[in-house]
Amino acid sequence: MFLLIFFSKRFLPLVSLAGGFVLASQVWAADKPPPAPNGIERPEGYQDWRPIGVSHRSDKNSLRIIVGNDIAVQAARAGKTNPWPDGTILGKLVWEDRVHENWAAATVPGKLVHTEFMIRDARKYAGTKGWGFARWLGDEQKPYGKDATFANECAECHTAAKDTDHVFTRPVSLP
Amino acid sequence: MFLLIFFSKRFLPLVSLAGGFVLASQVWAADKPPPAPNGIERPEGYQDWRPIGVSHRSDKNSLRIIVGNDIAVQAARAGKTNPWPDGTILGKLVWEDRVHENWAAATVPGKLVHTEFMIRDARKYAGTKGWGFARWLGDEQKPYGKDATFANECAECHTAAKDTDHVFTRPVSLP
Repeated sequence: MFLLIFFSKRFLPLVSLAGGFVLASQVWAADKPPPAPNGIERPEGYQDWRPIGVSHRSDKNSLRIIVGNDIAVQAARAGKTNPWPDGTILGKLVWEDRVHENWAAATVPGKLVHTEFMIRDARKYAGTKGWGFARWLGDEQKPYGKDATFANECAECHTAAKDTDHVFTRPVSLP
Repeated sequence: MFLLIFFSKRFLPLVSLAGGFVLASQVWAADKPPPAPNGIERPEGYQDWRPIGVSHRSDKNSLRIIVGNDIAVQAARAGKTNPWPDGTILGKLVWEDRVHENWAAATVPGKLVHTEFMIRDARKYAGTKGWGFARWLGDEQKPYGKDATFANECAECHTAAKDTDHVFTRPVSLP
């Protein structure tokens, strides 16, 4: 719990002001964003998940790390990803492109665009191709979508990856 | 141990042929690459390290995930990275650019170019700016460099990042 608050740098001044009166766990709890309009909560501890992919999109000028929970990582390493097993959660962490100060040919993360997640539950999310979709915007982690129908937009776009269980990511292997 | 062998897909046929006669641990041991010419061993378990950065290089046409061991991740989250603490290990996992089959504007990992590591030990590696450098090429993970002097080439290039302890990566924060 203690380590986790290092992620939420914008709360550090608050912690300093409040001194011993604020417990680390409360700060972390305050940091949890509201659920997405379809009721999905942002997965806890996603900051500690392991990478299974990476990408750059020239149509969005952004860099992405794809991480997975333990079930996802095991499935990826076993090559059992079509379909992914129930319980899989994939996270995509997206940053604006920025030119590296010391290396002009390197594109590195700028501002956080969003974190987004796909949660596999074939029955619960049967209406959106077996996946629960949710996204939180920017450093504020504001939930994306006006109402629960936003997830149709996600599912629609992922139709392009229907041959790979609606997942764009091809897990990397690391020898 | 069992899960780890899923990384080494090229050994799976061998495992199948040998059947019960080969223990998983032996396969994994066989999978460990030789040390770099300066004696540095590839860090064990780097596949399970957490991400602290990502980049794309247009001068090398490659995508990179930067991962760190526990000491590195703690330092990154605490903002204590100039200098990074002794014991830090940073890993850079590099893949050739590939166009995504289902999304032309997305660049995703192709062939593994190399894994490379920076190991912080200010005294031991005083000759190369406090960092031990090593790199293993491709899926074969062949050690890079003809002799121990290869590390001078690494350190020389990292001079461009001398204001940030010779590390190019600026750790991302995840709220």
